Amino acid sequence: MSEFHSIVGVFPCQVHWGDCDPAGIIFYPTYFRWMDAATWAFVDRVGYSAKRMRSEHLAMPLVSADCRFLAPAEQGDRCEVRSRISRFGGKSFVVAHDIVREDGTALASGSETRVWGRYADGPGSPLKGETIPESLKALFRAT
Amino acid sequence: MSEFHSIVGVFPCQVHWGDCDPAGIIFYPTYFRWMDAATWAFVDRVGYSAKRMRSEHLAMPLVSADCRFLAPAEQGDRCEVRSRISRFGGKSFVVAHDIVREDGTALASGSETRVWGRYADGPGSPLKGETIPESLKALFRAT
Amino acid sequence: MSEFHSIVGVFPCQVHWGDCDPAGIIFYPTYFRWMDAATWAFVDRVGYSAKRMRSEHLAMPLVSADCRFLAPAEQGDRCEVRSRISRFGGKSFVVAHDIVREDGTALASGSETRVWGRYADGPGSPLKGETIPESLKALFRAT
Amino acid sequence: MSEFHSIVGVFPCQVHWGDCDPAGIIFYPTYFRWMDAATWAFVDRVGYSAKRMRSEHLAMPLVSADCRFLAPAEQGDRCEVRSRISRFGGKSFVVAHDIVREDGTALASGSETRVWGRYADGPGSPLKGETIPESLKALFRAT
Repeated sequence: MSEFHSIVGVFPCQVHWGDCDPAGIIFYPTYFRWMDAATWAFVDRVGYSAKRMRSEHLAMPLVSADCRFLAPAEQGDRCEVRSRISRFGGKSFVVAHDIVREDGTALASGSETRVWGRYADGPGSPLKGETIPESLKALFRAT
Repeated sequence: MSEFHSIVGVFPCQVHWGDCDPAGIIFYPTYFRWMDAATWAFVDRVGYSAKRMRSEHLAMPLVSADCRFLAPAEQGDRCEVRSRISRFGGKSFVVAHDIVREDGTALASGSETRVWGRYADGPGSPLKGETIPESLKALFRAT
Repeated sequence: MSEFHSIVGVFPCQVHWGDCDPAGIIFYPTYFRWMDAATWAFVDRVGYSAKRMRSEHLAMPLVSADCRFLAPAEQGDRCEVRSRISRFGGKSFVVAHDIVREDGTALASGSETRVWGRYADGPGSPLKGETIPESLKALFRAT
Repeated sequence: MSEFHSIVGVFPCQVHWGDCDPAGIIFYPTYFRWMDAATWAFVDRVGYSAKRMRSEHLAMPLVSADCRFLAPAEQGDRCEVRSRISRFGGKSFVVAHDIVREDGTALASGSETRVWGRYADGPGSPLKGETIPESLKALFRAT
């Protein structure tokens, strides 16, 4: 399967005091919190807001997630998560995230594999994966 | 209104690396996370498990919360949250929490004021406060 | 002691998926995370950046914190924390925070009481409260 | 390089209300928080407590982390993280974590790659990787 040629979403974020650990640098699960929020912002950008996702009973549960930590981030650092779809499968997709500090330093690089699905009977009810419609893929395609 | 004579719930917890900040001590919102979890454990103990709360569409949203910080906690500290109902109002109640380290040191002391309520139409739908039944109060009364 | 006439700090924030609980609204300790970050942003604004605080061994540990929850916030809500110094004591000060959604709705209102202090021997070493210098108070005074 | 035959550390944990998201299941960065805490508990078990790590200026920063999510966890679920060293390199090591619910269901499976290092001049100062001593490896070796 070939690499998907994706638009890039930008999610701004900042390292706060409470995001750091006693070593004085970012506590690593913070990057995953950012990646999750960045994905929601990315789908919002193409028209799937949190409100719409909720009202249409759509969800995008995780299959897996990973991250490599490249440079330590400190309190006050302003960053952005640059997200793109690196792959669309039948019912799943991969979001690749690069976390970059405002001085251009690459801090971390990760990915999330998610299923595109729908709750059978509203939030909390069993979730069933759905074939990702071509119309949705088109929204993320770089032209 | 007189003080309620309550049983005491005990919620064990421990300070982890990621709960601490660059000063090397607990990041204070952690105490509120613990207090929330302690309240859920407390109502579970008298018969209102998370599963039951969910299936009966019950909820206990917050009106207010406060905490005084008495001594710094460090990574590895084993603690417990001791919770009791300090007051029952018509539709609201106050949970008082003492956070104590295993050596007996009082770390923090806080309270949560919550409404006892029910979702009109399942989780996510509007929530309406309910008069707290005497049978519920009785479950928390120390004999 | 009279109320201090303070400038107002503005800290923008947004409710993310992971900040919400199964009721679909903000998990309340999130407000305290925001209040903490807002205070750091506020002192940064008057010249005390995280970097300076660290290099001068300054700290501002909490004495107490409280919050009233006025309206539920949902995923995607854009908010700001409006912070001001409501009181300066000898070695302590109170930061009052109003959390407001972009549509003007007041979501929460809280305060933090903090000590102004210095580590005797760098981060992690014992901390000693210091008399707050008039020059520091002046930086926060609205003219 | 051959697989290391490791003892297994057990870190008990529970899914709390605030660990869950609006879908009513665990918010995935929670697993990484648990994995981090499980690693600290694991090294504590073989004699490297948080206190000792701090006093000897030792640290174990992350190189990478990953997790596969196998089954959704809900509020109240009691779990344990079972950790073992899957590999020792020269200055780095890999901790493999299995997260299992008390009914035996595998919830998640992940790993952390970490460096064994020492702060040149106390916490916050630059960190330098160190060759992992054979005596340390021996503490984790299953007999």
